[in-house]
Amino acid sequence: MTLPLPAALAAGNHRPMAGYVARHVRWSCVDGVATLTLDRPERKNPLSFESYAELRDLFHALRHAPDVHAVVLAGAGDNFCSGGDVHEIIGPLIGLGAPQLLTFTRMTGEVVAAMRACPQPVLAAVDGVCAGAGAILAMASDLRWGTARSKTAFLFNRVGLAGCDMGACALLPRLIGQGRAAELLYTGRTLGGEEGERWGFFNRLVAPEALLAEAQAFARELAAGPTFANGITKTMLHQEWAMTIEQAIEAEAQAQALCMLTGDFERAYRAFVERRRPVFEGN
Amino acid sequence: MTLPLPAALAAGNHRPMAGYVARHVRWSCVDGVATLTLDRPERKNPLSFESYAELRDLFHALRHAPDVHAVVLAGAGDNFCSGGDVHEIIGPLIGLGAPQLLTFTRMTGEVVAAMRACPQPVLAAVDGVCAGAGAILAMASDLRWGTARSKTAFLFNRVGLAGCDMGACALLPRLIGQGRAAELLYTGRTLGGEEGERWGFFNRLVAPEALLAEAQAFARELAAGPTFANGITKTMLHQEWAMTIEQAIEAEAQAQALCMLTGDFERAYRAFVERRRPVFEGN
Amino acid sequence: MTLPLPAALAAGNHRPMAGYVARHVRWSCVDGVATLTLDRPERKNPLSFESYAELRDLFHALRHAPDVHAVVLAGAGDNFCSGGDVHEIIGPLIGLGAPQLLTFTRMTGEVVAAMRACPQPVLAAVDGVCAGAGAILAMASDLRWGTARSKTAFLFNRVGLAGCDMGACALLPRLIGQGRAAELLYTGRTLGGEEGERWGFFNRLVAPEALLAEAQAFARELAAGPTFANGITKTMLHQEWAMTIEQAIEAEAQAQALCMLTGDFERAYRAFVERRRPVFEGN
Repeated sequence: MTLPLPAALAAGNHRPMAGYVARHVRWSCVDGVATLTLDRPERKNPLSFESYAELRDLFHALRHAPDVHAVVLAGAGDNFCSGGDVHEIIGPLIGLGAPQLLTFTRMTGEVVAAMRACPQPVLAAVDGVCAGAGAILAMASDLRWGTARSKTAFLFNRVGLAGCDMGACALLPRLIGQGRAAELLYTGRTLGGEEGERWGFFNRLVAPEALLAEAQAFARELAAGPTFANGITKTMLHQEWAMTIEQAIEAEAQAQALCMLTGDFERAYRAFVERRRPVFEGN
Repeated sequence: MTLPLPAALAAGNHRPMAGYVARHVRWSCVDGVATLTLDRPERKNPLSFESYAELRDLFHALRHAPDVHAVVLAGAGDNFCSGGDVHEIIGPLIGLGAPQLLTFTRMTGEVVAAMRACPQPVLAAVDGVCAGAGAILAMASDLRWGTARSKTAFLFNRVGLAGCDMGACALLPRLIGQGRAAELLYTGRTLGGEEGERWGFFNRLVAPEALLAEAQAFARELAAGPTFANGITKTMLHQEWAMTIEQAIEAEAQAQALCMLTGDFERAYRAFVERRRPVFEGN
Repeated sequence: MTLPLPAALAAGNHRPMAGYVARHVRWSCVDGVATLTLDRPERKNPLSFESYAELRDLFHALRHAPDVHAVVLAGAGDNFCSGGDVHEIIGPLIGLGAPQLLTFTRMTGEVVAAMRACPQPVLAAVDGVCAGAGAILAMASDLRWGTARSKTAFLFNRVGLAGCDMGACALLPRLIGQGRAAELLYTGRTLGGEEGERWGFFNRLVAPEALLAEAQAFARELAAGPTFANGITKTMLHQEWAMTIEQAIEAEAQAQALCMLTGDFERAYRAFVERRRPVFEGN
């Protein structure tokens, strides 16, 4: 039995997000599983300055949300995301000065940083077009499901930019290897669904009509697991990139000892002894 | 011709292990190739506190063993290892305090650290069940051979724990990529043999009945190679994870220059000139 | 419109290389695409002390070359490169002292360092034998195309040396994963073309007779892209290996903001608006 969090500590750190009312994206949350939908299907769900900012703030807030345990990131209609809109984003950037541009690139980078820093696993459900910043959002998720017809393209060099956008040169090589990442970033060419699965970009391919429902069902399974421990898994997958093996081993010894002090660890043990399925509580 | 090691230096640093008498695992050594067998086949070779400690000490001692040049790590019967035993390990951990748990998690982490720090290549021969800490032992080996029926599962989240166990969040992504590693660690799902080979977790699949003998034959080839240089290869694969490319290049320039001063380098050259197979001596 | 580089700054930093006259390799440059050919086909294009030094100096000079935008690295005849020559390199190394050997290993390492530090993408076109230091040159390139009959082997342990040569223990695991890299480096065994493509070592396989022409055509496409931005992509793929995710995100925010200040970014936008293909100028 653990005591409840002192009210004064909970006040600043437990801020429910299940009922969040989104403005520039769609948000719903059922049984701890949030579905975040990029929702401008008539234009293949492009991002705007406003939706970037909302994504940044939303994922940042998830860090403190006690009522969301997994996130499905999807696009409305038959596409995931067409990236930063040419008219709403690229046009206005032309002519800006260095400090203003850095304000923009830092904002977009903060979306990725917030996606990596929140404890909830994020599952990208990718159908159709997944381009530019959309490909980055997929890449920055913990898991990615695609469809055979999905088309992922890191388009940056097609618009005169470098492939180093929002962490791509660090994240993509760790997903698919340095050589394949270099090819995608130098050329902006499209990665098909089957190729993406073969390379480890996609964890699996699903039929388009089943994608969202299956992704949500999978996320429910994650949310029914030991969510405190899952959050630690996410933290460590993130933290250990630039550690030596020895540092990683010590960091995990501490992190796992912490998890062994949770009720979920004891719950799993009791369930095993009693030959039943454990019911985790995330604490 | 190199001089023998001064007796006083050899005393503390050359401690043969070929004749080691194991208590909680099985150990044999023929012609420099050790076979370390987890040997409780009636329960699929689970680990106990005692066998963890013995593995830690054994791999630690291999660092100073001049008579062991490669290790095959196998399981008795048709399974590799079922991981930490629920009754012998998980049960007793329930109710322990933080310092005691850290003593345990550090001990298990030290098994991996010792496996990475000894100069001998370790080849895991994985048939059947390879679960929990067993999957970690396979992951921490230098090479992995599986069978089509092998079942590898990082079960930690099934028992209420995080996937960050004994270095898994650092090691597994480097073997199979960050996305696939995340999936295995978040879900604890089973990785089949063929999928494991496709992902690069297994170096090859072998028929179950041939696995041990072929693994030992392969290890004999490694042991007949330039073992001093092989130990340097292992050290550098381990050391360079958190280096910049420039640091790695300088570290390798030094390490390879050292190897060029060995008799084995000259032996290989003489053999090539004389059109015969070189006989390496590991010095 | 950007001003031309001040003459005094250009003097030390813009040194054309298209017309470079090679001594120990073959060099040609057409429309910003250089083809660097290892050209001793009767012996499968081995490296010599002189060609190592020339490669080092050549790639180092490319850092300042304003007229070369992509490099194809190829071998004459039906082979890529047989590595350091036994008679011209290994023989003379036997009997050298530690400082002399370090002079050699640092020189070879500097070839890789210079290949990684120049802004031009390097595409290795690999047919036939690709062995030892030849395999390193392929590995150190940004992209690799092979043929079904290409044979890549990190032969070092066959000649009594360690696999840690010119950065191999850092670079190879990032291309193909830690387990597969360990196997190739411990054994020196040959990686076939199809296996290499499956593992991500090769970006694609091409018919031998078409390899060079197709590689040059692909390099022309790269050279027709936003070459300033491509050079930044290369820099970041290289720089971010040992960064944390947070550091990488901030580094990319700065790098991409810089690229947003180039004329190429605006050119791409104008072309998009005017529904035509952009013409990049690399500034």
